[in-house]
Amino acid sequence: MLNAIDKVILEEIADLHEVPLGAYNIRKNGEGISRNTTANIDIITKKDKPGIDVIIKPGTKGESVHIPVIVSQEGLKDIVYNTFEVGEGSDVVIVAGCGIHNSSGESEQHDGVHEFFVRKGAHMKYVEKHYGEGDGTGERILNPKTVIEVEENGLVELEMIQIKGVDKTVRDTDVILHENARLIVTERLFTNSDQSAESNINVKLVGEDSSAQVISRSVARDDSKQIFHMNLIGHSKCRGHIQCDSIIMDNAQVSSVPEIDALDSDAQLIHEAAIGKIASEQLTKLMTLGLTEIEAEDIILQDFLE
Amino acid sequence: MLNAIDKVILEEIADLHEVPLGAYNIRKNGEGISRNTTANIDIITKKDKPGIDVIIKPGTKGESVHIPVIVSQEGLKDIVYNTFEVGEGSDVVIVAGCGIHNSSGESEQHDGVHEFFVRKGAHMKYVEKHYGEGDGTGERILNPKTVIEVEENGLVELEMIQIKGVDKTVRDTDVILHENARLIVTERLFTNSDQSAESNINVKLVGEDSSAQVISRSVARDDSKQIFHMNLIGHSKCRGHIQCDSIIMDNAQVSSVPEIDALDSDAQLIHEAAIGKIASEQLTKLMTLGLTEIEAEDIILQDFLE
Repeated sequence: MLNAIDKVILEEIADLHEVPLGAYNIRKNGEGISRNTTANIDIITKKDKPGIDVIIKPGTKGESVHIPVIVSQEGLKDIVYNTFEVGEGSDVVIVAGCGIHNSSGESEQHDGVHEFFVRKGAHMKYVEKHYGEGDGTGERILNPKTVIEVEENGLVELEMIQIKGVDKTVRDTDVILHENARLIVTERLFTNSDQSAESNINVKLVGEDSSAQVISRSVARDDSKQIFHMNLIGHSKCRGHIQCDSIIMDNAQVSSVPEIDALDSDAQLIHEAAIGKIASEQLTKLMTLGLTEIEAEDIILQDFLE
Repeated sequence: MLNAIDKVILEEIADLHEVPLGAYNIRKNGEGISRNTTANIDIITKKDKPGIDVIIKPGTKGESVHIPVIVSQEGLKDIVYNTFEVGEGSDVVIVAGCGIHNSSGESEQHDGVHEFFVRKGAHMKYVEKHYGEGDGTGERILNPKTVIEVEENGLVELEMIQIKGVDKTVRDTDVILHENARLIVTERLFTNSDQSAESNINVKLVGEDSSAQVISRSVARDDSKQIFHMNLIGHSKCRGHIQCDSIIMDNAQVSSVPEIDALDSDAQLIHEAAIGKIASEQLTKLMTLGLTEIEAEDIILQDFLE
């Protein structure tokens, strides 16, 4: 069922060499091709639209769900709606991610709409990796929409990584945090050639003592374009911090348009953004150690996106 | 010509006890009431619309221009268009500012549109203070629009201060910086009661080696609202830094919506914004020295807005 290309993609987006342990659902070219459930994690195909419901029982700890998506069919425009019920007090890792292999002249696209209900006191780590490859001239397009509601005392960690090879992306992430709920977002974005990427993160700090930390790092090379809208809205006593750093090279363009709104005088919100090129001292230092300029650049960029 | 109220206003907005030294033009309730020119600085009434042209000869150094505006007439809506030609290599201080005294039930408004051409190598310091007073229920409204073009090697320092008593303000500031031109903006904004303030600063870094530094500090008390749009657009090799700090108290609301756009890979742009209340340690420290909470708050706020 999994051919050589699929295996490369699975390794890139989910660090998987074979089928994963625990619960999983592998989607290829618009269809589920392989699934496993566990005693605590059920996966049910949606009846009204493409996608799955993932139901994690309250108190489930130390389990994982893998839901990789492979797109390799010429001209495919795949849309999927996945819903996650992360039960009260559970502690789970969910690994999503999509890899597109395009060797055709037509575009291939995957739009993943993910909705998460993280119940009281639950801890969810959600990892999403996006990757494109293939020598076709057709575009590789990935538009994830991630909607998360975090109940009291919940903790959500998001790792959202676009490794390489994605020609166009619009990433929408909307999070609502209730009382004492916490959010930690790590975003990594790389574009080159004439790729474009837009990332929109909206966090509503609704509950008392909720907190959010968003750290975004990106590298834009060649003629690529990136735009970031990172918004924190403090509706009550809360703390929020956004840090958005971009390295810009060649003819690339980067825009950062954040918004912080304190609607309560006990809201503490901080935003920091910096756009600039690699510090020349860093380059010089590595080059005096014997590296070429390109090698030195590569090391600095890899380190920055780690 | 200047009554007791006028003198209080002049002192608040321009630190003037009597008529100023150097060139000046005093406008009261929509009319110029007093003017002085010097050998190097001419002031000419516009023919096509209300306002003046201020022409500063190339090489003029160490001179100042005062152009205070007094509004104290019930229901007045005053609009004025002033144009400044700041000659090549000159070094001048321009003190504007508007004070509104409203003891009526109707609103009083002053919209000052200021356009500056700062020629090659010129240094202009522009100070603008806004102030409202009077026990009337009518609103005191000030909408300044400031448009500045800075030629090669020019330096512009802006000090824009809204002291108190302004019920509504929309402040628009647009600056274009050419080669090696520098901009330093200091903004101070205070609102209380149900006042609202919007400040929009757009800086285009067009020329090689241009640089901009914008430091904005504000305090929002009671039910007041503030919104900031601070934008830096880097079109070439340039450096820009925005720092926007707000103290929020009571039921006030503050939004910060900056934008940094690097359209050139040699543009280095940084934005920092923080919204929060007074640090409780600071309050505690001053209160252990014998101050009441209100006295301690006042000292911290004054210090912050200095």
